[in-house]
Amino acid sequence: MEIEELVQQLQQLLEAKEYRKLRELTEDMQPADLAEAMEEMDVQQRLLLFRLMKKDVAAEIFAWLGQEARGELIEKFSDTELTAALEEMALDDAADILEEMPASVVKRVLAKSSKKTRDSLNRLLNYPADSAGSIMTPEYIRLRKDMTVTQALDVIRREGENSETVYTLYVTERNKLLGVVSARDLLLAGPDQTMEELMDDNVISVQVTDDKEEVANELNRYGFIAMPVVDSEGMLVGIVTVDDATDVLIEEATEDFERMAAMQPSEDSYFATSVFKHARNRIPWLLVLMLSATFTGMILTHYEAAFAAMPLLVSFIPMLMDTGGNCGNQSSTLMIRGMALGEIEPKDILRVVWKEFRVALLVGVVLAVVNGVRIWIMYGDFMIGVLIAVTLLAAVVIAKLIGCMLPLGVQKVGLDPALIASPFITTLVDACVITVYFTIAVQMFSALQG
Amino acid sequence: MEIEELVQQLQQLLEAKEYRKLRELTEDMQPADLAEAMEEMDVQQRLLLFRLMKKDVAAEIFAWLGQEARGELIEKFSDTELTAALEEMALDDAADILEEMPASVVKRVLAKSSKKTRDSLNRLLNYPADSAGSIMTPEYIRLRKDMTVTQALDVIRREGENSETVYTLYVTERNKLLGVVSARDLLLAGPDQTMEELMDDNVISVQVTDDKEEVANELNRYGFIAMPVVDSEGMLVGIVTVDDATDVLIEEATEDFERMAAMQPSEDSYFATSVFKHARNRIPWLLVLMLSATFTGMILTHYEAAFAAMPLLVSFIPMLMDTGGNCGNQSSTLMIRGMALGEIEPKDILRVVWKEFRVALLVGVVLAVVNGVRIWIMYGDFMIGVLIAVTLLAAVVIAKLIGCMLPLGVQKVGLDPALIASPFITTLVDACVITVYFTIAVQMFSALQG
Repeated sequence: MEIEELVQQLQQLLEAKEYRKLRELTEDMQPADLAEAMEEMDVQQRLLLFRLMKKDVAAEIFAWLGQEARGELIEKFSDTELTAALEEMALDDAADILEEMPASVVKRVLAKSSKKTRDSLNRLLNYPADSAGSIMTPEYIRLRKDMTVTQALDVIRREGENSETVYTLYVTERNKLLGVVSARDLLLAGPDQTMEELMDDNVISVQVTDDKEEVANELNRYGFIAMPVVDSEGMLVGIVTVDDATDVLIEEATEDFERMAAMQPSEDSYFATSVFKHARNRIPWLLVLMLSATFTGMILTHYEAAFAAMPLLVSFIPMLMDTGGNCGNQSSTLMIRGMALGEIEPKDILRVVWKEFRVALLVGVVLAVVNGVRIWIMYGDFMIGVLIAVTLLAAVVIAKLIGCMLPLGVQKVGLDPALIASPFITTLVDACVITVYFTIAVQMFSALQG
Repeated sequence: MEIEELVQQLQQLLEAKEYRKLRELTEDMQPADLAEAMEEMDVQQRLLLFRLMKKDVAAEIFAWLGQEARGELIEKFSDTELTAALEEMALDDAADILEEMPASVVKRVLAKSSKKTRDSLNRLLNYPADSAGSIMTPEYIRLRKDMTVTQALDVIRREGENSETVYTLYVTERNKLLGVVSARDLLLAGPDQTMEELMDDNVISVQVTDDKEEVANELNRYGFIAMPVVDSEGMLVGIVTVDDATDVLIEEATEDFERMAAMQPSEDSYFATSVFKHARNRIPWLLVLMLSATFTGMILTHYEAAFAAMPLLVSFIPMLMDTGGNCGNQSSTLMIRGMALGEIEPKDILRVVWKEFRVALLVGVVLAVVNGVRIWIMYGDFMIGVLIAVTLLAAVVIAKLIGCMLPLGVQKVGLDPALIASPFITTLVDACVITVYFTIAVQMFSALQG
C-alpha cells in the first residue's frame, strides 16, 4: 500500500472516532509502514493513535519511528507511558532509544523499570558506542545440552515471545557457550535426540568489545541469522541478529560516503535533517580544505615569472589538477572500501603500494601519450607536449601512491581512513602536481627562469 | 581460527594422506572459512580436497569460492563432476555460477542435469541481470491453508533439507500466494491450529521484474528473513532471502563508491583483480574527464590578458576550483546515496533544489566572509577580498545546484546517477567557477579589460 493512502485511511478513522477499527488495522499492518505513516501525521494524532494501539504493537512501532517523530512523542508521554513502552520493547531497541534521551529522562525511566530490565539496560548502555555490546540483545534462548528436542521445543514455546529470534538457539552450561542449534536442526530431528547430539560445538562467536562493523561483516560473511557475543571469559552475554547487522553495514557505508565527500556524517535522512544542520555538517571540512588549498595557490605565486613569460602554461593547470585528484581518489576509494569490507588491512601496505605503482605506470603512460600527442598537434609545439606528458605521468604516480598510503597509514594509527577523505588527498595531490609541473617547465624552458 | 593456520592444517593432512580426518574436518568447518582457505591453496590441492569432501559439503563450498578460484576448479572438472556439484547446490547459487561460465559449458551442464533442475535453472537464467528474479531461489516451502500445525511441521521435516529457509513458509492455493506463516508462529501455536488461522494474509511481496536493489531495501526495511517474489499474475515464483539481500546492498554500495571515484566497478576484491584489469577499469573515465577538463583550460586561455596584467589572480584558482568541487560533491553524494537507500526520488527535485539553495547560501556566506577577510588582511587589498568573497558565494551556490540536479535528472531518464559521478560534476563546476571568477574580476578591475 502507498504510504499516503495509509495516512489518509488512519486520519479518516481517527476523525470518525472508529477506534476499534483503528486498533484492528494497526495490528494487521507492517510496523515499518505504520511507523512511516505516523511520521507524516502531526504529533497529537500520533499520540492518540499510539494510545489506541495494543501495548505490544505500540512498543514495536515506537522502535520503528524516526528519531525526530519519536522525540516529539517522548515529550508528550508521561513517565509511566514511556516506561511501559520501553518495558515492552526488545531490549537492544530500548537501549538505543535511551541513548538518545537526556540523562534526566533516562534516570527517571530506569528508576521506574523492573529490576531485571534496569540491569539489562544498564549493561547495554555501558558498552562503548561502536562495540558489539552496543548493538546486541540479551534476549536469546538458552538450552541445556541434556535436553531433548521435545524439551527444547517446550522452552521455545515458553520463551519465544520474549526472544529476539527463535531460529538460532544456544546451548550453555553455567553461561558458558557450548554450542549452537538451529531451529532447522530441531524441526528436522527426531523428538528424543539431545542438544548435545544436534549442536554444532565449533562455535563462531565475537567479543563484546569487538567493533560493531567487524561483527556485522563476520555475520554476513558466514550467512548467519544471529551471532553470539561472549565476554572475555567466554560467557555468553548476548546475540547480534542479522537485521541489526545489516543496519550497521548500511549506516557505515553511508558514513563513509559522507566522510569521503568532506561532510560530517548525519544520522537522519536527507529530508529529516534541517537546512541549518546540513550547513553545519558541511562547513567545517570545506573551511579546512579551502584554507589548505591556499598553499597550492602560494606555490603558484612562486612561479609567477614563469607563467607571466608563458601564459599558456596556466591553461593546463585545471586539467592537471583534476586528473591528479581523480587518480588519487580512485586509489583512496579502493583502500577505504576494501578496509571497510575487511579485504585490505594496514599490514598489506607494501603489497598495495607495489600494486598501485604498477597500475599507476600503466594508467600514467596511456594518459601521457594521449594528451601529449593531442597538445603537440593542437599547439604545434612538441616541447609543450613533452612537458604535459611527463607531468601527467608523474602526477598519476604521485596521486596513486598518496591515495593508497594515506588511508592505510591513518587506519594504522587507529583513525577512520574515510576521515582523511578524498578531498584532503585532492588538496595534497594538487600541491604536488603544481610543484612538479612548474619545476619541469622551468628546467625545460630556460627562458622561464628567474 | 586464523585462515593461515587452517591452510597449514589442511595441507599437512593432504600430504600425510589422512583422508578420513580431512573429510571429518571439512564437515565441521564453516563453509566461508573453508572456502577462504582453499582459495589460498593451489588448484591441484583444491581439486583433491574437493573430491574428498562429502558431496553436499563440496557443493556448498563451491558456491562460497571466489570467482577466480572457482573458475580454475571448473577447468579441471569433468562435466559429470560439475553437474553433480550444481545439482547439489542451492538453485540460485547454481544459476549465479552458470552465468559466469562460457555458453558451451552451460549447454553441456544443462543437458546433463535432471529435467526439474534444468527447468528451474533456465527460468532463473532468463531473468534480467538486475531483477529480483536473478537473485531469488525457487526452493521454498509451500503449505495449504487447511493444514494443521502438525501437518505443516511434517512438511518442513520432509522438505526442509532442500529449502533455502524453513523460517518463513508460504500458504498457497494453485500457486497463488495467500499468506505467510513464520516458523516462530508454528513453534508457538497449538498442534491443531490451521494455517488459515495462523497466517498473515496481508502479505508484502515484490514483482519478479523489480530491481534487485529495491527488493533488498524493502526486505531490510521490514526486517524480513525472506521476501516472496510473485509474477505479474500474483503467482509465487520464488523467495529472496536476507543473506542474498545483504550481499546485494554491499555490492551496490561498493559499485557506487567505485563509480563516484570515476572507475568501472569490479566484481572481485582489490587483490583478486589483476594490475592490468585495475588499469583498464580506471583509464576510460580518467581520459574522458582529462579531455573535458581542457575546456576549463580554454576558458582560462580566454582570460590570458587579465592574468597577464594581474598574475595574483592565478594563485586563487586552485582554492576556488577545489572548494567548488567539494561543495558539488557534498550535494551529489547526498543525492546518490539518498536515492540508493530509497529516501530521495526524482520527483522530489523541487524540494531538493530549494533545500540545497538555502544550505548553499548559509555555507557560501560563511566561506566567503572567512576567506574574503583573510585575503583583505593578508594582501591589504579590499577589492581582491571582495572579488574572492563574491566568487566563492557564487561558486558554492552553482556547485550545489549542479550537484543536486544532475544526479536526480540522470536518474529520471533511467541512468545510474553514480555514473554521472562526482568527478564529472567537479569538471563542470570548475568551468563555471573559472568563468564567474574572471567575469567578475574583469568587471571590477577595468584595467584588466582587453
